[in-house]
Amino acid sequence: MKKTPTKMADGRELIYYDEDESVIRDNTDLRKLPELQFTSEIRHDPLLDEWVVVASHRQSRTFLPPTNRCPLCATSAENPTEIPASDYDVVVFENRFPSLALSALDIDPAVPVDAGLVDRRPARGRSEVVVFTSDHDRSFSQLSLARVRTVLDVWADRTADLSAMPGIEQVFPFENCGIEIGVTLSHPHGQIYAYPFVTPKTNRMLRSARHYREEKGRNLFVDVLAAERRLGERVVVANDNWTAFVPSAARWPIDLHIYPHRQMPDLTGLTSTERADFAELYLTVLGKLDALYGKRLPYIAGWHQAPVSRDRDLAYLHMELFSVQRAADKLKYLAGSESGMAVWINDATPERIAEMLREAGI
Amino acid sequence: MKKTPTKMADGRELIYYDEDESVIRDNTDLRKLPELQFTSEIRHDPLLDEWVVVASHRQSRTFLPPTNRCPLCATSAENPTEIPASDYDVVVFENRFPSLALSALDIDPAVPVDAGLVDRRPARGRSEVVVFTSDHDRSFSQLSLARVRTVLDVWADRTADLSAMPGIEQVFPFENCGIEIGVTLSHPHGQIYAYPFVTPKTNRMLRSARHYREEKGRNLFVDVLAAERRLGERVVVANDNWTAFVPSAARWPIDLHIYPHRQMPDLTGLTSTERADFAELYLTVLGKLDALYGKRLPYIAGWHQAPVSRDRDLAYLHMELFSVQRAADKLKYLAGSESGMAVWINDATPERIAEMLREAGI
Repeated sequence: MKKTPTKMADGRELIYYDEDESVIRDNTDLRKLPELQFTSEIRHDPLLDEWVVVASHRQSRTFLPPTNRCPLCATSAENPTEIPASDYDVVVFENRFPSLALSALDIDPAVPVDAGLVDRRPARGRSEVVVFTSDHDRSFSQLSLARVRTVLDVWADRTADLSAMPGIEQVFPFENCGIEIGVTLSHPHGQIYAYPFVTPKTNRMLRSARHYREEKGRNLFVDVLAAERRLGERVVVANDNWTAFVPSAARWPIDLHIYPHRQMPDLTGLTSTERADFAELYLTVLGKLDALYGKRLPYIAGWHQAPVSRDRDLAYLHMELFSVQRAADKLKYLAGSESGMAVWINDATPERIAEMLREAGI
Repeated sequence: MKKTPTKMADGRELIYYDEDESVIRDNTDLRKLPELQFTSEIRHDPLLDEWVVVASHRQSRTFLPPTNRCPLCATSAENPTEIPASDYDVVVFENRFPSLALSALDIDPAVPVDAGLVDRRPARGRSEVVVFTSDHDRSFSQLSLARVRTVLDVWADRTADLSAMPGIEQVFPFENCGIEIGVTLSHPHGQIYAYPFVTPKTNRMLRSARHYREEKGRNLFVDVLAAERRLGERVVVANDNWTAFVPSAARWPIDLHIYPHRQMPDLTGLTSTERADFAELYLTVLGKLDALYGKRLPYIAGWHQAPVSRDRDLAYLHMELFSVQRAADKLKYLAGSESGMAVWINDATPERIAEMLREAGI
């Protein structure tokens, strides 16, 4: 894999990741782009003890443009896009409408937020777009094994780079797939958020893992994986280095956790064999999702990685993938109980979900 | 208000709450209904330390029936509904497809869930439906002041009754409003969940309130309300006994917290004047939502009440109301950051949301 970092017309970073080591990337972004001004901030919610990102400049972001105006396609004479090349493999660039940006301006002290109760800081992190292929009409599940492997290498490389940037505390590569869940660009892509804090979800898991280690002297994630593999009831697919299982307290109609068999803090620790095995298993998983109802399911898939600078021995790299599709023609909505009280109601048992997925697409 | 408890054909409880004390309720539910079997269970997620409800019998629940088959309308010869009366004011009954039911069967030990890591219990709580009016086409915002007051009295009465039931740890009255958020019946109604555990959201708030009291010797909610009232920037509307404000770290495009000025654990503590003042303020708030984009907004509104049996001095009764409508024609979706990592991204500043709501519908 060849990595070529470049700059876009407005100064944002764009990186080509090419499978062919001989490719030369010397195109220039010729567009005239407006100067960027990021006013994102993070605010600490004193009641829930969680950071919230306030990114007011994003209201005007691109919303489902027609295909011939897709900003993620390769550049043509008619459509100068975010990617100033006539073709590419995988490309990563800084989001034009970022939630988090290292260049976020200082907090405007004129906005009164009552600093006594509410901590405010510039949202200095990074929001990257990862374009998986130049083929606008492909889905992740249709990528070649080699390309999935490249994407995994890119995620790992970005994790290393972003973890080294000032103030970054957690790196979250994820894919939102499907118009049903609000995806605003249909070209196959994912995102990476590099947060300037440890996320609430990760904090909760680490708290549980800390209690468990204090009580039992063992790693919670290791024991959860071992229990699932021993029981087998909720395992959907596994190979030598990975197991995909439905968690015992699944929240979503489709809810899959994919663990490597070795504990490690983040993607950078994966061996070459582990990477190859993930690519193979992940394509099987996505094939099952497509087969389940004979249509492409909306899903969210994200990598849970250790915080950059603490609890790296407690954490356990894994992917969580879930879908709101609760039947062929029905979506699960987060209503009062979920959104209001954080109590998830699942209409399907985790064992039944696992059975459906095991049987799908064989 | 006159309260008349009755039984439905399948044994579920149905309670009439009539504004006219002289009304006699002696109708019988003549439908032949199948026997009820609730197999709901709750499972404890060992990683996030939260209970999840698994309610597998709900998959077949009623989904947007045509108006002439609405199960919440008054009964007619053509449409025998859940309510066996020709008219009514407010009615509460046990949900036919409950997430939680006191009659939930014992756990089936044949389903292997690995009890070593995952606690499982029958989902013994209660799921009630609260029908606000017999008028199918009305919305909550179109109810009379007297009816809003009646509904508030009903919420308080249900809180008292449900809190006294065995094993109930928290009572959550809420309204999901709008097809956009998955409401399956358009007849104006809300729900009440009586949980057999304290919800994650409430647990988090109580943890913050406990730390704050240990550190500052004061109540966190009291200080948050005082700060918002002193600052005024995010207050949308207020009267002698209530203040509605946008929280300083608002998560949703529309996000309103409505606090009574007196600290109390739950709705049962409200005086008559406080109830009247809430009804007036709440209709103003809902009128503003309707006026914001000149259309009815989808929203979720729920009462945050203290746990039934602990931390009642730490908690502070309040309502949280939010909407996913982020522009006239755009919804906010919970994507990777929110659903995957519990990091909310808000495209609008809380101060701007408050300004929009203050100006709406004047």
